[in-house]
Amino acid sequence: MKKIRLFTPGPVMIPEDTMLEMARPIDHHRTAAFRESFKELGSLLQYVFQTSGTCVTITGSGTAAAEAAIVGCCPPGHKALVGLNGKFAERWAKVCANFGIPHTAMPVEWGTGVKASDVEAQFKADPKLDTVIIVHSETSTTALSDVAAIARVTRAHNAILIVDGITAVGAIPVKMDEWGVDVYITGSQKALMLPPGLGFLAVNDRAWQRIDSGKTPTLYNDLKAYRKSLEKNDVPYTPANTLILGAVHNLRKIKERGLENIWKETALFARATRAAVAALGLKTYAKDPTDSVTGIWVPQGVDEAKLRKTLRGDFGQQWAGGQGDLEGKIVRITHMGYMDIFDTLGGIAALELALKKNGYNTPIGAGVSAAQKVFAEALG
Amino acid sequence: MKKIRLFTPGPVMIPEDTMLEMARPIDHHRTAAFRESFKELGSLLQYVFQTSGTCVTITGSGTAAAEAAIVGCCPPGHKALVGLNGKFAERWAKVCANFGIPHTAMPVEWGTGVKASDVEAQFKADPKLDTVIIVHSETSTTALSDVAAIARVTRAHNAILIVDGITAVGAIPVKMDEWGVDVYITGSQKALMLPPGLGFLAVNDRAWQRIDSGKTPTLYNDLKAYRKSLEKNDVPYTPANTLILGAVHNLRKIKERGLENIWKETALFARATRAAVAALGLKTYAKDPTDSVTGIWVPQGVDEAKLRKTLRGDFGQQWAGGQGDLEGKIVRITHMGYMDIFDTLGGIAALELALKKNGYNTPIGAGVSAAQKVFAEALG
Repeated sequence: MKKIRLFTPGPVMIPEDTMLEMARPIDHHRTAAFRESFKELGSLLQYVFQTSGTCVTITGSGTAAAEAAIVGCCPPGHKALVGLNGKFAERWAKVCANFGIPHTAMPVEWGTGVKASDVEAQFKADPKLDTVIIVHSETSTTALSDVAAIARVTRAHNAILIVDGITAVGAIPVKMDEWGVDVYITGSQKALMLPPGLGFLAVNDRAWQRIDSGKTPTLYNDLKAYRKSLEKNDVPYTPANTLILGAVHNLRKIKERGLENIWKETALFARATRAAVAALGLKTYAKDPTDSVTGIWVPQGVDEAKLRKTLRGDFGQQWAGGQGDLEGKIVRITHMGYMDIFDTLGGIAALELALKKNGYNTPIGAGVSAAQKVFAEALG
Repeated sequence: MKKIRLFTPGPVMIPEDTMLEMARPIDHHRTAAFRESFKELGSLLQYVFQTSGTCVTITGSGTAAAEAAIVGCCPPGHKALVGLNGKFAERWAKVCANFGIPHTAMPVEWGTGVKASDVEAQFKADPKLDTVIIVHSETSTTALSDVAAIARVTRAHNAILIVDGITAVGAIPVKMDEWGVDVYITGSQKALMLPPGLGFLAVNDRAWQRIDSGKTPTLYNDLKAYRKSLEKNDVPYTPANTLILGAVHNLRKIKERGLENIWKETALFARATRAAVAALGLKTYAKDPTDSVTGIWVPQGVDEAKLRKTLRGDFGQQWAGGQGDLEGKIVRITHMGYMDIFDTLGGIAALELALKKNGYNTPIGAGVSAAQKVFAEALG
């Protein structure tokens, strides 16, 4: 028997009951029942973003949500700083470029987070900057940025801070209001354990003021239309309503479990994986690692494509490779989603076996044993 | 027992096996298996659009797809004509307005189709026009436009024709290449019998030339990025992959049944419904009616909101009301989706009973009997 297991940092594995919830007979979205669900979703999203701001759901990928945030917060007359530490940060700079939004794309070493001191230096060098766009957990490089520290800088300069929290929200600590983030973004297919197809945003009053100050040069991703519909717990365009019912279902469970408990568990899986990586004589990639996904250098002499082919073909496990300059150099394993201790151990076990098959002198058992010790210690 | 039946012109009822297909364990979209599915989807879409053009799938509503078509085909230097015969046509004019695209919004009497002669007159009056945007089947007014005739005009003027086929494609005759349409658009939650969440476009070479001639001021809905990814049977942003598997599942079945047979059946349901409406002493709304949805004037003395509340509350049937100026004046019943003779009869039966409850002197049985006769005749 060979089970399929997704270790990709999105899409992640989804609880069976969530899939069945979404397979119920479809109903229409302009009904009282749907409006109740949509209202509850807004309130549950406030919990996961830790905000009293307005939460918006867009039918589209996280990219649609990020585009909505950027184009809304940067009407003519504003200038953005994008901290460029990975493929997703590059995409947000491309949103600015395509819409003709003046911006500075600040190079940041891959594998590291955007530094608050570098953001501060940019503000000092360019008084026109009034918007900062960063990625909290850069999925492509597995690097974490210190959002709280950067928010202190943006607040001091009275700027708007937009944070891509696509592999952060629901996985690692996110405290939008406490930190002073103005727009936080996430997607359905990461820590919220849903199929892809929904983008979520939390928008505070400071950001709404900015959005209201100018004309938004788009229709589908114009946040103003979404806010107007929200007054009636409605949406401006036909929503992916099966996914929305799944979102309510999952977010209720996330709230029941408690975000702090989930954050701890994600961190535990990351810690165990790192211990296993070290025990196998391997190295993790990121200098500032996030806990939602771990990047591992593929050892010399091992072909990354073949390694992942073994993981999938022999063991049913879908791992992610590297993106951009990291293609062929690292593999990535998620700690988000419908994932427990034994999935994590299974991932490490498969990596050991696949490395052996691909010519690495694997100390078989060393990885799973090291991870087990981390789990045993955590369980007390 | 009370079953829920959707008679709204989208979302429509969905086959149970489609819902279960989409509830299978999720897999990743960057896999060989997904690329195979995505390739097959492209080919199946060519069949439903009746085109050899490139078919693009966007995760979003039909509005996202329409925005992609409009903004792509109208780079700076071009001017669009929008035939304004309903709420959706108005939305496409708003896309032009929001993106700053020069356009003429041509008023058209609601309930009628856009006339080719009026389009011709606009071209004669304004030589700058080089793009025409029309709605094939205006869901809000239940009116049909003669796309073939309009395409002859746009071709004669060497213009690009964009057609919103959201409640046309897969329901009523659509022959993109034969007619000479340049971009056709549809959505998942109509005749394709899927939940909302995917927009589909078919784009021919003339349209691609136009799209390539300028910079597209958006990222998420930039068709160039989708075409580039299609070269590898891939998508630029994480797709709603459960819905995509459902789309392949349904489109295979649609191809098996044959579009002509489906078009005939949709037309039959529309004809039977119109016969029932007449037999009940009621009137249909549209002067140029589409076969995918029928609008019915609510008789004097009957409260439209209460009528639909009875349909839903007493009989489990979700009907659509009027939109815009038609709010409170008409009800709408779909002939698309997972729908057969007996669903159609059930809709008419519920309408009879709900009209009676709401004070209309209904000739009970006259509607279902008239519809039955149409069905019997068609079956021969």
